[in-house]
Amino acid sequence: MAYLNENYLKLQAGYLFPEIARRVKEFCDANPAAARRIIRCGIGDVTEPLPPAAVVAIKSAADELSVRETFRGYGHEQGGDFLRSKIAQLDYRARGMEIADDEIFVSDGSKSDCGFILDVLGDRNRIAVPDPVYPVYVDTNVMAGHTGPADKTGRYEGLIYLPCRAENGFVPSPPNEQADIVYLCFPNNPTGAVASRTQLEGWVAYAQEHKAILLYDAAYEGYISEPNIPRSIFEIPGATECAVEFRSFSKTGGFTGVRCGFTVMTKRLLAETSDGRRLPLHKLWHRRWSTKANSVSYPVQRGAEALYSAEGKAQVRALVDHYMGNARLLSDAALRAGLQVYGGKNAPYIWVRTPPAVTSWQMFDRMLEDLNVVITPGSGFGAEGEGYFRISAFNSRENAEEVARRLESAVFS
Amino acid sequence: MAYLNENYLKLQAGYLFPEIARRVKEFCDANPAAARRIIRCGIGDVTEPLPPAAVVAIKSAADELSVRETFRGYGHEQGGDFLRSKIAQLDYRARGMEIADDEIFVSDGSKSDCGFILDVLGDRNRIAVPDPVYPVYVDTNVMAGHTGPADKTGRYEGLIYLPCRAENGFVPSPPNEQADIVYLCFPNNPTGAVASRTQLEGWVAYAQEHKAILLYDAAYEGYISEPNIPRSIFEIPGATECAVEFRSFSKTGGFTGVRCGFTVMTKRLLAETSDGRRLPLHKLWHRRWSTKANSVSYPVQRGAEALYSAEGKAQVRALVDHYMGNARLLSDAALRAGLQVYGGKNAPYIWVRTPPAVTSWQMFDRMLEDLNVVITPGSGFGAEGEGYFRISAFNSRENAEEVARRLESAVFS
Repeated sequence: MAYLNENYLKLQAGYLFPEIARRVKEFCDANPAAARRIIRCGIGDVTEPLPPAAVVAIKSAADELSVRETFRGYGHEQGGDFLRSKIAQLDYRARGMEIADDEIFVSDGSKSDCGFILDVLGDRNRIAVPDPVYPVYVDTNVMAGHTGPADKTGRYEGLIYLPCRAENGFVPSPPNEQADIVYLCFPNNPTGAVASRTQLEGWVAYAQEHKAILLYDAAYEGYISEPNIPRSIFEIPGATECAVEFRSFSKTGGFTGVRCGFTVMTKRLLAETSDGRRLPLHKLWHRRWSTKANSVSYPVQRGAEALYSAEGKAQVRALVDHYMGNARLLSDAALRAGLQVYGGKNAPYIWVRTPPAVTSWQMFDRMLEDLNVVITPGSGFGAEGEGYFRISAFNSRENAEEVARRLESAVFS
Repeated sequence: MAYLNENYLKLQAGYLFPEIARRVKEFCDANPAAARRIIRCGIGDVTEPLPPAAVVAIKSAADELSVRETFRGYGHEQGGDFLRSKIAQLDYRARGMEIADDEIFVSDGSKSDCGFILDVLGDRNRIAVPDPVYPVYVDTNVMAGHTGPADKTGRYEGLIYLPCRAENGFVPSPPNEQADIVYLCFPNNPTGAVASRTQLEGWVAYAQEHKAILLYDAAYEGYISEPNIPRSIFEIPGATECAVEFRSFSKTGGFTGVRCGFTVMTKRLLAETSDGRRLPLHKLWHRRWSTKANSVSYPVQRGAEALYSAEGKAQVRALVDHYMGNARLLSDAALRAGLQVYGGKNAPYIWVRTPPAVTSWQMFDRMLEDLNVVITPGSGFGAEGEGYFRISAFNSRENAEEVARRLESAVFS
């Protein structure tokens, strides 16, 4: 008798984005005329062309593979040395953080890694997640059996939820109880909030005191514009002993379809065994990659490497500037429409309060039906997201301008 | 206190191939002259250029991404429709197997999928693995906590080992006890054995009787030359209700560095809950992909698709013929050297008995030191692999000929 993993049965209906896609499709099928006006500001998917430097590198790597002398098969499961060294040097050591090349693990994106990291962690950890939160952190813990069932608000038994509200600037403080694993994401998806150095120091101090591990998702670090905001958790002294960092080329290099990211796991990060030994997690994580993966596609890795060249960097900069220009337009329009607006300064996401007595999904439907604009309902990110919605700035300028116009002309009371 | 996954501590030293790489490096560092003569027939990694059809498709997809109008971001997490439909149609329906497009899940290779499949299976399953076996099946079960510790021979408590010996033609019969999940791999890695239709019918009957699931690894199906040997488990009536199939473009299209494969999970495959309901595993597997992945790199998927074009198929055929030509050369040479030889007819692997009283690792060292040829020690694949070694036919013709010459001139008694 083959048994299935019953933890999956605890999962709430549909992962958020497939659910949005379903509703949009339903609306479009029923309203073919309106369907042509639809503008998507829902899922955080890039729209602008891949940086030319990456295109050239991918094509040239494909050419390499077409010739016997330069053909390559399996690479190191943990990623190509050429890419790992560039990441470690340019993203970390050049900025004063002591990260070795072999502490970089190249992956096909931070979404996967945020899930895979649970492979090497034990089942008895107490897990803390922000609320609202990127659904992947929660769902992968449900799948792994780290929670009980969900309650009516969608909160799972056994998780510690860290409320992110307007009152705390959407940056949670460490809890007054023991958490063993804490997910943090800055710049935040979905709220667009960033954490100050002092706030991150507070989290590192908490982790040190509680021997906890911070799982730090920095997928949007490229969008930070304020100079004093840390771009990496490793800028905080002591973090190399208590944090794992996830990064992605999806939102910087427009790699959502090309797929590449990486995880930084230092050799100084220890975790506990049940008999009280403290061992480096790096060895387990390395073994995980050796056993379960064969590295990322070679042409893709070369494409990612190209983002670190002088022209690659300039092209990434231009992409980020483009999307942040949209963010300003959309933010201003929502403000002018009388809405309360957060985020959008150091992140490509604008987090907007719904009008009084309008729920997140009601707002989703209204935006879809009246404005033909797809947004993401805040409640899809957790109970504390109720009463908010997220506008993504990933779009063409033309579309962003049009959404801004529609927002300003709307009546939201 | 953050806890680690202690199951990892049960794993035997080094995953096989990293361990081989380590020994080869040590030898080469100590013997720089011999190092230049080294020919690698160890890891099953392809050596010949990528099929031109795939190269063209990858480059053209990169070009698509360079233009706003044809740019693509996130795709379906389960793979692009264009690729899933081609696979389902050409690999299955055109061959009389009823597989729907949405029963194909595109992955970055069958190695990953062989591990990921455990995500959706319960912890109480009794697992059966062939011995010798591709180490990934065993190690991922150890990591998932499905075993006790290993004994002196490397066998883990709690697994059912299915001995594959010369006496059974290296094709195990179903056990006389209940197994819930059974890994099968044909053409087999490492032995090169294939299962006949009758033998596979026996396994499907076993699965039906025991409500077990067969995890069928068909990564090497492209190497089958005998017309009566099934290429897919789904050729066996009833298998769509009791089997999952893993396939890969690694060994057919030379994709070991490009990374693409797929898993076939039908909607008719059910698994049990602890309260006795039988539910389709497809829904869980689909959810797993939605939550933990963002599909495979778009240019890579286009590259894989190109292998199904007329020219792509011809180029794949030529690659397979090339490697099978090597297999014949190596097989014949090993025979002439007085060794007992198996496999190599429907698979790119030759499975060779070591001379009397020579262990697998001794043979590895001898081949490395005396012949400067890297092979894979059979014991690395399990206790029953002791006394064997694997020669991989993945090489240039020139190298295969040279290895054949060295083998024939060697004294193996």
